[in-house]
Amino acid sequence: MSELTIQEARSIIEDQIEKLKKRNKEPEWMTKLRYKAMDAFFEAPHNDPVIKDPLDYIAKTEEEMYPEVKSLDELPPDMLALLDRLGIAEVEKKYIAGLAVQSDTSIVLNDFLKEWRKKGLIVESMEDAVRNHPILKDLFLKQFNPYESKLAAYHTAVWNGGIFLHVAQGLKVPMPLHLFFLIQNSAMAQAPHIIINAEPNSEIHLIEGCTSPVLVRHSLHLDMTEAYIGDGANVKLSVLQNWPEYVHTRPMTRARIGKNAEFINTTVGLGTGKSNIANPKYWVDEGGYVELNGIILGQKDFYVDLGGEMNLDASGARGLNASKSVIMDRSSVITRGIIRANAPKTKGHISCDALILNSEARMETYPGLVSQVDDAELSHEAAIGKIREEELFYLMSRGLKEEEATQLIVKGFVNPLLKDIPMEFVIEIRKIIEMAVSGGM
Amino acid sequence: MSELTIQEARSIIEDQIEKLKKRNKEPEWMTKLRYKAMDAFFEAPHNDPVIKDPLDYIAKTEEEMYPEVKSLDELPPDMLALLDRLGIAEVEKKYIAGLAVQSDTSIVLNDFLKEWRKKGLIVESMEDAVRNHPILKDLFLKQFNPYESKLAAYHTAVWNGGIFLHVAQGLKVPMPLHLFFLIQNSAMAQAPHIIINAEPNSEIHLIEGCTSPVLVRHSLHLDMTEAYIGDGANVKLSVLQNWPEYVHTRPMTRARIGKNAEFINTTVGLGTGKSNIANPKYWVDEGGYVELNGIILGQKDFYVDLGGEMNLDASGARGLNASKSVIMDRSSVITRGIIRANAPKTKGHISCDALILNSEARMETYPGLVSQVDDAELSHEAAIGKIREEELFYLMSRGLKEEEATQLIVKGFVNPLLKDIPMEFVIEIRKIIEMAVSGGM
Repeated sequence: MSELTIQEARSIIEDQIEKLKKRNKEPEWMTKLRYKAMDAFFEAPHNDPVIKDPLDYIAKTEEEMYPEVKSLDELPPDMLALLDRLGIAEVEKKYIAGLAVQSDTSIVLNDFLKEWRKKGLIVESMEDAVRNHPILKDLFLKQFNPYESKLAAYHTAVWNGGIFLHVAQGLKVPMPLHLFFLIQNSAMAQAPHIIINAEPNSEIHLIEGCTSPVLVRHSLHLDMTEAYIGDGANVKLSVLQNWPEYVHTRPMTRARIGKNAEFINTTVGLGTGKSNIANPKYWVDEGGYVELNGIILGQKDFYVDLGGEMNLDASGARGLNASKSVIMDRSSVITRGIIRANAPKTKGHISCDALILNSEARMETYPGLVSQVDDAELSHEAAIGKIREEELFYLMSRGLKEEEATQLIVKGFVNPLLKDIPMEFVIEIRKIIEMAVSGGM
Repeated sequence: MSELTIQEARSIIEDQIEKLKKRNKEPEWMTKLRYKAMDAFFEAPHNDPVIKDPLDYIAKTEEEMYPEVKSLDELPPDMLALLDRLGIAEVEKKYIAGLAVQSDTSIVLNDFLKEWRKKGLIVESMEDAVRNHPILKDLFLKQFNPYESKLAAYHTAVWNGGIFLHVAQGLKVPMPLHLFFLIQNSAMAQAPHIIINAEPNSEIHLIEGCTSPVLVRHSLHLDMTEAYIGDGANVKLSVLQNWPEYVHTRPMTRARIGKNAEFINTTVGLGTGKSNIANPKYWVDEGGYVELNGIILGQKDFYVDLGGEMNLDASGARGLNASKSVIMDRSSVITRGIIRANAPKTKGHISCDALILNSEARMETYPGLVSQVDDAELSHEAAIGKIREEELFYLMSRGLKEEEATQLIVKGFVNPLLKDIPMEFVIEIRKIIEMAVSGGM
C-alpha cells in the first residue's frame, strides 16, 4: 500500500467520488456503487507484480498534468511530434472528424451517429448514459465484483469516461465505429468504463484507439469493459494501444456471449508502455464463439502479461485464443490463455507464437486447457524462436538489406491476426513495426 | 498437520531414525543428515493438495501391515490373484530370478551382477552403499534440500531401501537392468532413495518396476531419485508403476545431464492409485539431451499431477517432454511441463495428448515455455479429445466389436512413447490397458 494512512486514502477517494457525483449529476445508485467499491478497495486482494497501490499514481501537482485539450492540434509539441513521426495523426484526425471523440468525459457526436441513432444505435458517454438509460443499472458492474481485486474496486470507485454502446435487435452497422481515447486529465487514473450491449442478431465493430498519450506522467490506465453479446449477435472489438513508455495499463474485459453469437476481440499492443497486465474472461453459451487475438510488440522495458479465460459453458460453444508476440530490447512478455470445456461438443484452441529479436528480451507462455467432458476437443500449440536465418538470407539474396528483410518477416509474422483491422490501421501498425525493428522509436 | 503434537511427531521420527541408524550401521554423516531433515520437516513449506501430513500415513497396528515376504509366492492371496489375472507375475518372476530384487532393505544379487561388477557396474542396496562407498557423501541429497518441502524433508529423515547404481567410465551395459520394488514393511512410508551415477561415456538402462503392491494399506510411497549423467553418457530410466488404489505416490526425481550426455526418463503409470504428484527437474549442460515420456492411464478416482522442469543451461542443450494420457472413470489428470531456455542454441518441445473416455473424467494441461535468449527454439502442442467416431466406425466396419476397437485405438495412442520399453513389458502394459478399457480392473 501507499504511504497514505487508510483515513487519508479514504478521504482522497471520497473527494473524487463527490466531485464525480456532482459533475456527472449521477443517479443515486451509481454513487452508492462507488462508495461500496471504495469500501471494497480497502479489503480486496491485490497481487499485481508492478502496481503496489493505485493511489501512488495520483497526479499531485499541476505540472504532473497536461492541460485539457480539445483536439490533436492542442497537444503538447513533444506528443504531437511523436504522433506526426508515426504518421498517426492523419489517420486519427480523420476518425476524430468522422466519428466519435472522447475528450475526458464528453463525447462529440457527429452527423453519422445522429442518423444511426434513429435506427437503434446508441453511443453515449458513460456519464450521460448512466443518467439517460435505466437499463445500465442492470448492466453496470454485473460481470465484475469490486471485492475480487483492488484494481477492480479502484476503477469502480473513481471510473470516469468511457462509453455505452447499445445496438438494437437485428441492427447491423456496416462500418467500424471508432472510439478514440484522446484526453484524460483526471488526477486519479484514467478509468473509462465501456459497456457494449448488442441485442440479439445485431452486428457491430468497435475500434478503440488508445494511440493517444495518457497525459499524466507515470500514469495508470484502468479501463473496464463489459460486453453483453445477445443470441445470434456478431460483435467485433478491436483495441489498438500505443502507450508512451511511462504508462501502466490494466485493461479489464469480460463478455457474455449468447447462443450462436460471435465475439471477436483483437488487441494490438504496439506502444512501449511500462507494463500491461490483462486477463479477459469470456463465458460462451450454446453454439457461441469467442476469439481473442493478441498482437504484442514488446519494446524497451515493457512488461506484458496477457491471459484470457474462456469458459465454454454450453453444447457447441467454441473458443480460439491466438497471440503473436515480437519481443525486443529488454522487454518481457508472458501469455497465459486458458480454455475450459464445461459442456459437450465444445472446441477450443490456443496458439502462442513469439519472435525474440534480442538476447535481453524474455518470453514465457503458459497456456491451460481444462476438460470436464468426454467429447470436447481442446488443443494448443506454441512456438518461441528467433527469425530463421535461412529466411533472412533468402530475402537478402533477393536484394533486401538485413533491416528491410527483418521488417518484412516481422510484418508477415503478425499479419494473420490483423484480418479484422481496417486497412488504414494496418498501414499504421506496419509503420510502427518498421520503426521499432529499425530501432527508431 | 496431523493430530500429533510437534513433540509426539518428533519422537516418532526420532525413534525411526535411531532404528534405521542401528539396523543399517550407518556412517555418522548419514544420521546427521536424517536429523537435519527432521528439523527441516517442521519448518519446510507444504502445499500438497491431498497429503495433509505424511505422519497421517503411519501404520499404527499390526493388521495395517502385511507380513514381510521374500518372493511373490508368499504374497497375500488377493494380491497374488490380481497379479496373476494381469499376467504380471510371470514376467516379473523372470526378472526377479534374473536380476536384482529389492526386498525391504536388502538386494539379492545374482551371478549376472557379480560378473558385471568386475567391469565397473555397482548395484547395491542404498543402505550397503552408504557404508561402502564414500563417494555417496558427495552425491546423496546434493540435488534436493530438505528445507524445500515437507515431503523432501520427511523422505530424507526416514528413507529406507533404494539402490545405488554406479557405471564406470566408458562401461556400456547392453541389457536393461530391472529393479523390482517388491516389499516394504516400514511403518513410516515406503521411501527408497535411488542414486544413479553414470560416469562419462557410460551406457545403462534401468527399469524400476513398481508393479508390486505397497503392502501397508492407505500407504504413502515417497521415492527420491538423484541421477548424475556424466559427459557423453547415455542413461535410460524407465519407471513402471501399477499401484493398488489406496496408494499415494510422490516420486521426486532430479537429474544433472552432462555435456553431450543423454537421459531418457520414461514413466508408465498404469495403476489406479489414489494420487500421484510428481515434478521431476533436469539441468542440461552443453549439447546434452533430456527426454521425459509420460504414459498415464487414469482409472477410478486416481488423481495425477505430473510436472517436469527442464533447464537448458548451456549452448545446444535440448529437452523433450511428451505425455499421453488415457483418462477414465472419475479420474483426474493434470500435466504441466516447463522448459526454460537459459542459453543460446537450445531447443525444447512439450507435447501433451489426452483421450478422455468418460464424461466424469477430467483433464487439465498447463505447459510452460520460458526463453531468455534470442536464439532458442521452444514449442509445445496439446490435444485433448475423445476417440474419433470415424475411427471407431471404421474399425467396427472391419468386424471389431466396439470394445475391441476402443482397445486397439487406445493401445495405438500410447504406443509411440513405449519405444524404450522392453517387449515383455509392452505386452504387459497392453494387457493392462485392455482390461482397463473393458472395465475389468
